[in-house]
Amino acid sequence: MNIIEHLQWRYATKAFDINKKVTPEKLGVIKDAFNLTATSYGLQPIKLIIVNNIELQKSMVPIAMNQQQIAQASHVLVFCIQTEIDQEFILEYFNRVHNIRETPKSILQPFQDFLIDDFEKKPQEQIETWATKQAYLALGNLLTVCALEGIDACPMEGFLPIACDDLLGLHEKGLKSVLLLPIGYRSNDDVFADFKKVRKPIADSIIEL
Amino acid sequence: MNIIEHLQWRYATKAFDINKKVTPEKLGVIKDAFNLTATSYGLQPIKLIIVNNIELQKSMVPIAMNQQQIAQASHVLVFCIQTEIDQEFILEYFNRVHNIRETPKSILQPFQDFLIDDFEKKPQEQIETWATKQAYLALGNLLTVCALEGIDACPMEGFLPIACDDLLGLHEKGLKSVLLLPIGYRSNDDVFADFKKVRKPIADSIIEL
Repeated sequence: MNIIEHLQWRYATKAFDINKKVTPEKLGVIKDAFNLTATSYGLQPIKLIIVNNIELQKSMVPIAMNQQQIAQASHVLVFCIQTEIDQEFILEYFNRVHNIRETPKSILQPFQDFLIDDFEKKPQEQIETWATKQAYLALGNLLTVCALEGIDACPMEGFLPIACDDLLGLHEKGLKSVLLLPIGYRSNDDVFADFKKVRKPIADSIIEL
Repeated sequence: MNIIEHLQWRYATKAFDINKKVTPEKLGVIKDAFNLTATSYGLQPIKLIIVNNIELQKSMVPIAMNQQQIAQASHVLVFCIQTEIDQEFILEYFNRVHNIRETPKSILQPFQDFLIDDFEKKPQEQIETWATKQAYLALGNLLTVCALEGIDACPMEGFLPIACDDLLGLHEKGLKSVLLLPIGYRSNDDVFADFKKVRKPIADSIIEL
């Protein structure tokens, strides 16, 4: 299949086969792909929680509007934002640049100072909105990577983030959940698998200038 | 190359080769991939403007913080949100579902009524934030598709959206620009192409439960 055929193959999976598991090797591709997601300024204000525990998954179902895919899925990915984008967080990033690229600190200093100052001035709500956008970017990346790897997935915005954060102990980790993505393999029973894709005609979606 | 090698190959391209153009065939893949992006409720509240006009690209440079890639790139993709998510917009979606899947209108009616009511109640700012998240999701998809197709790209959040909307006549089209993505092929001069990728260690990016 070419890329477009892979993207046509994927759909928001309504029922997973509980007996089919994503292998550690395939999960490794997903982890690497998540970490390689492009993010604003390269700051990576996001983390991925991977839940692979049937009891925990069952207890997440009520938090996710009773969507049963959470309990059926091989793994549930929880896209989180880091809530504290403070001086320490930004310094860590520049230390990484320095260590990996051997860029002299004097070259990095002006941009580092700019970012620390810029984020100090931003209201917390604006920081979280900014980080949340990066989580959606990562979701867009992973949905495509899953499709290419033949892994089914169902992106979910509709869940109770505060209850999810409580259940998974995210507050203590400085995280907030913003998206859920159960992954695995579609059940043979899922009639939605054969539904035609509903999309605008290309002419209504794209304008060429 | 496997997927991860493709994602490692990509980088935020700082200089494009002005002589290398993305072919209509490759552009077709990008268009199809954009239109296949998963969006919230399947509503597709986003459009993609493709600018392929050197004079227009040059006039966009000052709007994009003088980033020269805008003028060098083969094409500039402008990710837009649709600002009016009204009853008409939602009815169009359900008509599409009906026409493509032949789902009886009586089956669609309850969810249609729910969505119309839900979006009528939402403040405009909240609708635009919701739509903007979908644009980031589409960007995440296209960055990965570009990497797989060997197309270089440079995602840009830093530009003047109102000036961009004025220049491209987006207001009249019911659109607002939220992201820019010049695409094309890296220049041999771009020293950034050989820089090592800076990412957190996987253990700092992912938590397994």
